[in-house]
Amino acid sequence: MEHRLPDGVYAASLTPLTADLKVDHPRLAAHARWLLDSGCAGLAIMGTTGEAVSFSVSERTELLERLLDAGIPPSRIMLGVGCCALPDTVALARHALDHGVHGLLVLPPFYYKNVRDAGLIAAFDALIQQIGSASPEVYLYHFPQMTGVPFSLSVIDRLLAAYPGVVVGVKDSGGNVENMRAMAQAFPGFRVFAGSEKFLVDVLRAGGAGCISATVNLTARLAAEVYDAWQSPQADDLQRRMSAVRQAIESFPMIPALKLLTELRTGAEGWRHMRPPVTPLTPSEEDALQAAYAAALAEVQSPV
Amino acid sequence: MEHRLPDGVYAASLTPLTADLKVDHPRLAAHARWLLDSGCAGLAIMGTTGEAVSFSVSERTELLERLLDAGIPPSRIMLGVGCCALPDTVALARHALDHGVHGLLVLPPFYYKNVRDAGLIAAFDALIQQIGSASPEVYLYHFPQMTGVPFSLSVIDRLLAAYPGVVVGVKDSGGNVENMRAMAQAFPGFRVFAGSEKFLVDVLRAGGAGCISATVNLTARLAAEVYDAWQSPQADDLQRRMSAVRQAIESFPMIPALKLLTELRTGAEGWRHMRPPVTPLTPSEEDALQAAYAAALAEVQSPV
Repeated sequence: MEHRLPDGVYAASLTPLTADLKVDHPRLAAHARWLLDSGCAGLAIMGTTGEAVSFSVSERTELLERLLDAGIPPSRIMLGVGCCALPDTVALARHALDHGVHGLLVLPPFYYKNVRDAGLIAAFDALIQQIGSASPEVYLYHFPQMTGVPFSLSVIDRLLAAYPGVVVGVKDSGGNVENMRAMAQAFPGFRVFAGSEKFLVDVLRAGGAGCISATVNLTARLAAEVYDAWQSPQADDLQRRMSAVRQAIESFPMIPALKLLTELRTGAEGWRHMRPPVTPLTPSEEDALQAAYAAALAEVQSPV
Repeated sequence: MEHRLPDGVYAASLTPLTADLKVDHPRLAAHARWLLDSGCAGLAIMGTTGEAVSFSVSERTELLERLLDAGIPPSRIMLGVGCCALPDTVALARHALDHGVHGLLVLPPFYYKNVRDAGLIAAFDALIQQIGSASPEVYLYHFPQMTGVPFSLSVIDRLLAAYPGVVVGVKDSGGNVENMRAMAQAFPGFRVFAGSEKFLVDVLRAGGAGCISATVNLTARLAAEVYDAWQSPQADDLQRRMSAVRQAIESFPMIPALKLLTELRTGAEGWRHMRPPVTPLTPSEEDALQAAYAAALAEVQSPV
């Protein structure tokens, strides 16, 4: 089984917007370039942190084209394509494959709840059949807190049996490291990415492939250092410090927190636009976040 | 405040599909006509029961056009238009208004959870501003079990203050009759439709407008009789019998149950197609449903 996408640390990239809430394509390309230059193995584009579901299919295909035009390599992109409507998911997946992006991060159809295993399997059957023979590399996007539709071990087992070499991995954003370990142990070769860099060392020790995380929009360099050092004696200490940074951020709503901190990092105004229903932090939340983040960073920089 | 849509009983219409899972437009038109002829005041087209989110924007606009072409009056249609992506919701709403359909049933953006009131308000601000001045009649689609995004009384209060005559009502599919009563009492003139005919008499007594229900795909005539008789001495007995029919159906997954029973009602094969992740009942479930439904119908037809 050949893997096109590398192991390692992925940022679940933010999507910068203009004041009228359109995608700011040049700024997205610059952010993507910075993330790769900061040590990211790859980029998850159009995931939850990227406000994917808030954009129409045509906005999403344009976003990908503009990003590739700006020189971001397709072999470093894992693209979110999962929609409620199968024709939309198929359209996004085909468009990606036509543009050389093979890594597809696929949410389950996420409106209906109490979905039966057979329904989830049927959705992936239809998707993979309708994509055709363009060699997709499908990553299951497990995020039950948002979707209400988990990928159980039994569903994954059936998908792997049906689509070897096509269904190749998972982004587990459920926050339960035991589930990540269970998947890595149950399915050798299945590429388990933790949904947070908090679990990076844990998931690598369990045989996982890396992490795909929102906070890596800020912690990319640190996360790459932890990834490089995960088998070293310093691994646990580095992980602990990185987790403290994550912790400082994740007690606030994630997307507005990351957009604020990215505005501060870059000094470029206009990062704090987001589409409803995602909302900016209040001024007092912004102050509290900045204080918590600064304290966590100071701790990272102190001697080991 | 002029209401274009009538009070009364609405079917949350099923969407019949062909074997290749496309919309069966002639069959939908025939079903809609049967529902209106059976006493429905109106039809909720493209709601949860209609598998709305499983169709692309272009499939949804075509569905409406074909239904209107077939002679279903736009003044009897409440159209589901709420998507996660605001541009999609706006496109569907504008298309509906351009075709004379003013009654819009609007889900909140339903991917993100823990949405703040400000985010939900902002989503409706953007929608209503982008629709423009085409006199929409907006019904909030409250279904927290599916969306995870409830419309609280405080959000409704703010929307009513901001958009009098535009935000005019709610379909409450939450199943809690106390919430329906609370809305009807808190907001005089706000049109509260129960999401199940189980609550029809209750919600009418509380000042509500009627019901919009999946099971009305089958119980239309009975529900219309209960509606007509709700102030009569027979109301409670009629309600009880109708609720027993609903109860017999709702212990099974709703969409496949209704598609099976509609196939049996019409004698027309091919009703049991549905898009994943919705799945058909198992054969034993189908048998159990038919038995339960037949028993409830026999009870309805027994002397009062």
